[in-house]
Amino acid sequence: MRLTTVRAIAVSNIPIVSNGDNLAEMILENIQLEDGDIVVITSKIVSKSEGRLVKSSSVTVSAHAKEIAERNGFDPIHVELALRESVKIVREDGVLITETKSGIVCNFSGVDKSNVPNDDFVLLPIDPDQSALTILDNLTKATGLRLALIISDTQGRPWRKGSINVAIGCAGINAFKYNQGKKDLRGRVLKRSTICQIDEITALVESLMGQANESIPVTIVRGYDYSEGEEKASAINRQHENDLFR
Amino acid sequence: MRLTTVRAIAVSNIPIVSNGDNLAEMILENIQLEDGDIVVITSKIVSKSEGRLVKSSSVTVSAHAKEIAERNGFDPIHVELALRESVKIVREDGVLITETKSGIVCNFSGVDKSNVPNDDFVLLPIDPDQSALTILDNLTKATGLRLALIISDTQGRPWRKGSINVAIGCAGINAFKYNQGKKDLRGRVLKRSTICQIDEITALVESLMGQANESIPVTIVRGYDYSEGEEKASAINRQHENDLFR
Repeated sequence: MRLTTVRAIAVSNIPIVSNGDNLAEMILENIQLEDGDIVVITSKIVSKSEGRLVKSSSVTVSAHAKEIAERNGFDPIHVELALRESVKIVREDGVLITETKSGIVCNFSGVDKSNVPNDDFVLLPIDPDQSALTILDNLTKATGLRLALIISDTQGRPWRKGSINVAIGCAGINAFKYNQGKKDLRGRVLKRSTICQIDEITALVESLMGQANESIPVTIVRGYDYSEGEEKASAINRQHENDLFR
Repeated sequence: MRLTTVRAIAVSNIPIVSNGDNLAEMILENIQLEDGDIVVITSKIVSKSEGRLVKSSSVTVSAHAKEIAERNGFDPIHVELALRESVKIVREDGVLITETKSGIVCNFSGVDKSNVPNDDFVLLPIDPDQSALTILDNLTKATGLRLALIISDTQGRPWRKGSINVAIGCAGINAFKYNQGKKDLRGRVLKRSTICQIDEITALVESLMGQANESIPVTIVRGYDYSEGEEKASAINRQHENDLFR
């Protein structure tokens, strides 16, 4: 049965996260979860809990990073960290688009400066799917509920201006849902229709999380009829040979 | 004040749409709108109401379309219509990515075959922002409410596999919200953070609309704290000189 209402709920009162914090406990202290809930959390608090902060003063900038920074007017330390987090530079002219070690193609390897102590940069989690699995396991053990978990990050994209919130890690929910074999209104079988359900879920909750000083790093999506399974967020990343826009 | 819950509601019982139908009337017959509601409707029913169906038997395929179709194993009529709707081919090797006359870069100019009579193709609305404005005007006149309207389409994207629902037309709501000048948790002013709010809103409701034989072409997003204004969905389309991935 298709549900007819989906709700997105902001979880307020999550304290500022530090290295080693148990995110599952912090979530459960602030919201009563229900069976079938999808918990969406920002990559930033996952990174903080995993100690993925870097002090600017500790960073030695390479010649390559310095050259890219000077040519484009970027912060050399920001460039250096983006390069360290990357396996490949996709573009470096006016933008710095890289492929991260975890396979995500994005701006500056997702290295960011907002909402962290003044001198620090925050790096994306090393393995966001694994982070999601760990947090979900803790939530599941504590509640006994069937839950899903998504880790979000706000990213730009080609063709369309403006950033949107996307999923970089997931557990308990498939990255995609497939309409293959389903029939349309006229009874014709749809050849292929692969929807990235975790990106769609993640997009809307950004409005509750906010980008600036709203401290809402956790939201719950309730009533969403999702495809459950083991397909990871890393499956979203296009392989080089299939990505026509590199 | 930031609202803490957003709801997406499927509007069921919308009948199959024909050329000339008044969509605002059809919507109002099936849901009680509230002040601040965002109405999201599929491009498909807008196209149908505007007579944007083409019979395959009426289409003469050009040599160029035939060549692209043969080389890639595409339907020649589908390619022909995609070319007619386009001002530019972006890629034509394994995919057919075009820029439409209304400026959208997408697969096959958004020309589609599902959920239309057997021999027909459906084209995107000629000017989706204008379509949105017309429908919104009718809704506003009939209800006296402050409303917003978004026209959605399901599209693929570079870098990330799977399609997601995006906004191709809007009225009564800005395409973007800007976090420039806002401060982060540490009181630092964010340099730039432009969020495509209409794409974020549109993404989640796809789960209620479905891609196959669920006839839910209209959804309502309620409780979303949106930036109101005149900024059109066409503002999302990157200009050639700014789009590094063409």
